[in-house]
Amino acid sequence: MKNHPLRIIPLGGLGEVGRNMMVYEYGNDLIVVDTGLMFPDNGMLGIDYIIPDIEYLRQNKDRIRAIFITHGHEDHIGAIHHVMAEIQAPIYATKLTAGLIEVKLNRRGMANRAEIHVVSAGDKIVVGAFSVELFHVCHSIPDAVGLGITTPAGLVVHSGDYKFDHTPVDDWPTDYAKLAEFSQRGVLALLADSTNAVNPGWTPSERVIEEGFDQVFRKAKGRILVATFASLISRMQQVAEATERSHRKLAFVGTSMVDNMKMARSLGYITFPETLVVSMDEALNMKDRDVVIMCTGSQGEPSSILGRLSNGTYRGLEIKSGDTVVMSSHPIPGNEEAVYGTINRLFERGADVVYEAIAPVHVSGHASQEEMKLLLQLVRPKYVIPIHGELRMLKRHAFLAGQVGVADENIAIIQNGQIVEFENGKMTIAGRVPVGSVFIDSSGGGDVDPEVMRERELLAREGIIMVQVAVDRYSGGIIGQAEVTSRGLAFKDADAVMAGARRVIGDTLSRANGNAQKDLEQALGSYIYSETRRKPTIFISITRV
Amino acid sequence: MKNHPLRIIPLGGLGEVGRNMMVYEYGNDLIVVDTGLMFPDNGMLGIDYIIPDIEYLRQNKDRIRAIFITHGHEDHIGAIHHVMAEIQAPIYATKLTAGLIEVKLNRRGMANRAEIHVVSAGDKIVVGAFSVELFHVCHSIPDAVGLGITTPAGLVVHSGDYKFDHTPVDDWPTDYAKLAEFSQRGVLALLADSTNAVNPGWTPSERVIEEGFDQVFRKAKGRILVATFASLISRMQQVAEATERSHRKLAFVGTSMVDNMKMARSLGYITFPETLVVSMDEALNMKDRDVVIMCTGSQGEPSSILGRLSNGTYRGLEIKSGDTVVMSSHPIPGNEEAVYGTINRLFERGADVVYEAIAPVHVSGHASQEEMKLLLQLVRPKYVIPIHGELRMLKRHAFLAGQVGVADENIAIIQNGQIVEFENGKMTIAGRVPVGSVFIDSSGGGDVDPEVMRERELLAREGIIMVQVAVDRYSGGIIGQAEVTSRGLAFKDADAVMAGARRVIGDTLSRANGNAQKDLEQALGSYIYSETRRKPTIFISITRV
Repeated sequence: MKNHPLRIIPLGGLGEVGRNMMVYEYGNDLIVVDTGLMFPDNGMLGIDYIIPDIEYLRQNKDRIRAIFITHGHEDHIGAIHHVMAEIQAPIYATKLTAGLIEVKLNRRGMANRAEIHVVSAGDKIVVGAFSVELFHVCHSIPDAVGLGITTPAGLVVHSGDYKFDHTPVDDWPTDYAKLAEFSQRGVLALLADSTNAVNPGWTPSERVIEEGFDQVFRKAKGRILVATFASLISRMQQVAEATERSHRKLAFVGTSMVDNMKMARSLGYITFPETLVVSMDEALNMKDRDVVIMCTGSQGEPSSILGRLSNGTYRGLEIKSGDTVVMSSHPIPGNEEAVYGTINRLFERGADVVYEAIAPVHVSGHASQEEMKLLLQLVRPKYVIPIHGELRMLKRHAFLAGQVGVADENIAIIQNGQIVEFENGKMTIAGRVPVGSVFIDSSGGGDVDPEVMRERELLAREGIIMVQVAVDRYSGGIIGQAEVTSRGLAFKDADAVMAGARRVIGDTLSRANGNAQKDLEQALGSYIYSETRRKPTIFISITRV
Repeated sequence: MKNHPLRIIPLGGLGEVGRNMMVYEYGNDLIVVDTGLMFPDNGMLGIDYIIPDIEYLRQNKDRIRAIFITHGHEDHIGAIHHVMAEIQAPIYATKLTAGLIEVKLNRRGMANRAEIHVVSAGDKIVVGAFSVELFHVCHSIPDAVGLGITTPAGLVVHSGDYKFDHTPVDDWPTDYAKLAEFSQRGVLALLADSTNAVNPGWTPSERVIEEGFDQVFRKAKGRILVATFASLISRMQQVAEATERSHRKLAFVGTSMVDNMKMARSLGYITFPETLVVSMDEALNMKDRDVVIMCTGSQGEPSSILGRLSNGTYRGLEIKSGDTVVMSSHPIPGNEEAVYGTINRLFERGADVVYEAIAPVHVSGHASQEEMKLLLQLVRPKYVIPIHGELRMLKRHAFLAGQVGVADENIAIIQNGQIVEFENGKMTIAGRVPVGSVFIDSSGGGDVDPEVMRERELLAREGIIMVQVAVDRYSGGIIGQAEVTSRGLAFKDADAVMAGARRVIGDTLSRANGNAQKDLEQALGSYIYSETRRKPTIFISITRV
């Protein structure tokens, strides 16, 4: 067999590296790890979510041997239907992850599109030059795995999202033994989660939430609403247990939450007695102090159930004094304002709102600094590539790797699209492949390209000016007066500026010979800039009469 | 003297209560406390800052006896020139605060507009029915005061921004004795800062920053850049001292930072040897390891010096490998994304970036929970009105007040514009006055009203469509084809949608009888909605030929 370099390429993550999609390739074989979505920044108005541009996968369609999914959170599976629409390759995922993928594909009528292989932690899957061993990791969803990827160039460990929880909700800790075994075999490179690289210490166990919930449930005199991600399956189990302990009944609200709950329950990842759950209608007819409602919206999304409850626009349910709302999540960076706005509005409607800063109702699913060092010590890799994080987090992860003895030159901080090659035990940075982001405006418009995003921002930042003017088709002279309208522009004295604009239009037309349209745009643009220091988008409609 | 109620009204703060402006009135006398600005949210594109709508002050011009400013931060003085342009009243402020106000007024050629009385902690100022005693408080700027406001209705304590720092940079702790004395006299109501009401424990002393700076300065091999607010005067002193200890020289960059530094130094609030400071030009000609540069931009503002350095667009100075950048501040809520983006870009340019999460280079200037309880215990007020915070913080402050024994019915959680009245020792909520926000687009356009803000957001979220069409003036039939252009709209198949739009326009015009403009807008709007689920702003220009 001819010697090839092993190539590793992070393909998606917007400001983060490899968060949502990575590629490993050797010779003619290519495997994809994860197909997730990204959440839009604050400034990205009208965008629902973002997916990695899969141009590189498109270009290498015939070489893709398999897609491995590490766990079922949106930032790891959320682009699967976009990928499946273009790429033919078998998907390997654990039972719960496969279930969540199927829910997602079913909802889009793509149930038969994908060939999904349900595999388990401990399994070894051989595809082309790759032999992929799945090992169990703790995360805020059950059935998460990392990958031990053996290639002719060496063994690479890909952590996925993980933490070292000694008392996880499903009693299944991260597989220390497998990591130690990898280390005995000799690990060429570790690619590991950097999300919490700036957090000192050790991330608390999921188990602390139980006590947090019990405290809150004990004090609550009226209804309890718990908001979290629809894919936080462990949290659903914890809420169900706390509901049972407090002798209340539980209603799930929201399609994605109900679908995920049903699937996870049918697969045995959530267990609770049949009698615990009631429908929303039943819940609304019960005494307030007997009810727990679980819904989405913990990120302050205005269209989510909690978002609509906070705005008073959710039909069939209204927040009232005596309600306790539990925000069981951490704001995704950039969402702070929206989340705190939702909390404030819920308070305004009379609810008591309990969130992370006030009570232990959420813990992170990602390793903190001491855990990251533990992983490095367990795996003892020759090379380290920090992934899953912004540059500042990767840098911190590199600093931690340095602390446990990895040489600076053996740590690669890379960007999306950058190729890392391993050959003869040596790491090199080897060029780039096309990467990018596709903005999804799920309201129906289709993909929003960066050009449209720039247009939207420009419209919002600088405003627009529209001019309608009729000119004599022979003399080119203006007929009557120009109509000038603006949107999103602020003037010290609007009337004077509009009169000035009409004057500029008249003057320009009287001098114009040739491209009146362009002359008008220029003259009006510089007049408006001198008056407002803004550069609005200018539309000129000239009618020759 | 006739008995009047004492009325307290928070006038500004956007999502926060009374942060930037409050009014106290008794009978025919009215005093204003603070005249600050607010920072725009992420979604407010093109807005530089926001000030309280001072309609209520305008309506009561003749009753305003004085303006008291508690300290010199932007959120307490930043609207002073807007207020001074309309209101005639003497300003009372301590020396440093007065200096900062003068810097601000001078820059706008309003030096002679204001009558500023320089007062000191310990002073008592009698204006109309009010006797106002200033007491010293620690904050992240020297010379900050709270107010003990004696009125015929009782004594009200207004904390301003404060913390209980036992080892402040200027060695001047908060005036415990005065607070205890107020309590002996009997305090009707306490209005106190709620900023950190969700933070448990005690805010660390400003002094811990010294060690943080020393650590960072010791490790830095190249230039050091420290970014903070231009009004964080204590921080300038600390950076100067750390510079001296590390045998470097210090250059200040940026007009507002240099102006504030000079003023604070001339007044004795910053002290360092003349030889410590160099100009920017000198700094650039020195060895990298001899230089410290202090600048603004710690909030990720793209137009700030640090923002431009991170983008590579600052003239005369470029970030390079070996530079250490210290972000000595905490992101204002909503700025997290911008701040972390700046940090990532600085890393990309090769700098090492040190920020709050990594080293103790910033501490809060506001009291945490234990300090808030200490203030309540020292002052022992009958009534408590939490101010300076979002609703969720006020609620937490109220909870803390409950913990130290204040009865629920003696705590008022109010909104901006709400009047609290005190008469015969009883507190009542008594109606509202007009409040609001004025958006300042300082690039020259003048005040941006909420209508323009809505227009901007609509443009960005939904896009626009422009139609130009010529019709026969007699038959009303279309001549040629409509021209349809869009901005900020995404289509699955743009050509098909545009063709469809032209068809809809043609059909509508052929049926139109009466208001063709309106018919077209409606028909086109519903066609575009059916194709894109968006409701763009539609402009139609009909020319009758």
